[in-house]
Amino acid sequence: MTQKIGKLYAIGVGPGDSSLMTLKSVELLKTIDVIAIPEKNRGQKDSFAWSIVRGAVDEEQMLGQRSYLWFPMSKDHTITVPAWREGAATIAEHLKAGKDVAFITEGDPSVFSTWAYLQEELSEHFEALVVEIVPGVTSLTAVPAATQIPLCDGEERFCVVPATYGVSILSELIKEFDTILLLKCGRMVPELIKVLEPLGLLENATYVSYATDPRQRVFTDLREVPEEFCYFATVQLSVRGRKGVLRHGGQA
Amino acid sequence: MTQKIGKLYAIGVGPGDSSLMTLKSVELLKTIDVIAIPEKNRGQKDSFAWSIVRGAVDEEQMLGQRSYLWFPMSKDHTITVPAWREGAATIAEHLKAGKDVAFITEGDPSVFSTWAYLQEELSEHFEALVVEIVPGVTSLTAVPAATQIPLCDGEERFCVVPATYGVSILSELIKEFDTILLLKCGRMVPELIKVLEPLGLLENATYVSYATDPRQRVFTDLREVPEEFCYFATVQLSVRGRKGVLRHGGQA
Repeated sequence: MTQKIGKLYAIGVGPGDSSLMTLKSVELLKTIDVIAIPEKNRGQKDSFAWSIVRGAVDEEQMLGQRSYLWFPMSKDHTITVPAWREGAATIAEHLKAGKDVAFITEGDPSVFSTWAYLQEELSEHFEALVVEIVPGVTSLTAVPAATQIPLCDGEERFCVVPATYGVSILSELIKEFDTILLLKCGRMVPELIKVLEPLGLLENATYVSYATDPRQRVFTDLREVPEEFCYFATVQLSVRGRKGVLRHGGQA
Repeated sequence: MTQKIGKLYAIGVGPGDSSLMTLKSVELLKTIDVIAIPEKNRGQKDSFAWSIVRGAVDEEQMLGQRSYLWFPMSKDHTITVPAWREGAATIAEHLKAGKDVAFITEGDPSVFSTWAYLQEELSEHFEALVVEIVPGVTSLTAVPAATQIPLCDGEERFCVVPATYGVSILSELIKEFDTILLLKCGRMVPELIKVLEPLGLLENATYVSYATDPRQRVFTDLREVPEEFCYFATVQLSVRGRKGVLRHGGQA
């Protein structure tokens, strides 16, 4: 007897505002056998992704079993890798029992998501696992929606760098890119000011935290950003300036 | 007597699959006074954005007036700029009549969208226009959802460049970035192969056209891409390789 293996979905549930979930993600979550939910602290069920989902769908409308997976916030691989392996093993178990599983992740599964690690670990369990990745709205566009400054027009380039790795190469990046999104700026704002001021680019930077969430804050002057750590902090640097250079001299 | 000015929304309707529209966009489109729809050819009502919307919402469910705006596919500013101005003037007229307007755009308003031009032109009509940008799913994540290769993990950098401007600087970009998304690759694939082959990176490139749309095609070997022009063609270059380097030596 061979048991049919379940299908796995990786679902992006958007940046924070529940109404930015996609129709597809909502429909899938209502009927799927198992909803795999990332939690920050083991056993605490503290899940930003799950809180986004519950903002759009009543708990009773979701028929599937809940399966919590722990993703510790750590840079220590002796802590994170075993947790990823455990999460993958849990999902593999559901799939091997013939159940379809939806792993939910804030934003989009392809952008700075724990999905990348899970996917890699799952390849140890299955030779050819069928996965469907359901893209979601990311903070990459939730941030410019808040600043109302586009990332790029038709002839422009933009890049996305974690601030912890990006500040040192900023003076190089501004030569090649029209917009630079600096993610994970929580503790990096003072250092950013030090780098941007001599480059004459302090006025071109906008800080956004918790884009689209009720906690959203926008500062057009980095010097006004309070000194507090915020995990969902991004700085959008519009090298070309805030506006007015889209038309490349084509206007009358 | 002062007339209240309407509110303007710029709504991203996603990359092609109608079920990737957000809950928020669908709700807004059902009740808004005016739906402003971009068309490719004047008077033809040939609108990709509108076809995405109609795939998710019945025409009769949308109560608002339709207002078509012409956005010619041209690089000639003597053609495009007057068209943008005309579009902005049309929207301004609706708003001044007190009507709320939703401008729909494929993907997301902040990424290579005609919204950038409209927004700029609208600033000529109003001193302080209240706009709400509703982000959507973009091809930036629809493409990696199709390739099943993440854009970035927590310590990585990625960039987005139009192929027409990006091929020449590719040998520089691969030094700084883990993933490079080359947009508008329609006619650039042969040139890309010429650049990637000597760099030893041909195996790291995946071609995707019409991501999430029924016409979606994926080629893991650029040499197999047919020689036809496709406007929605993207190449994802995973400099770090296809997988297996996420864990930075942390594994057992």
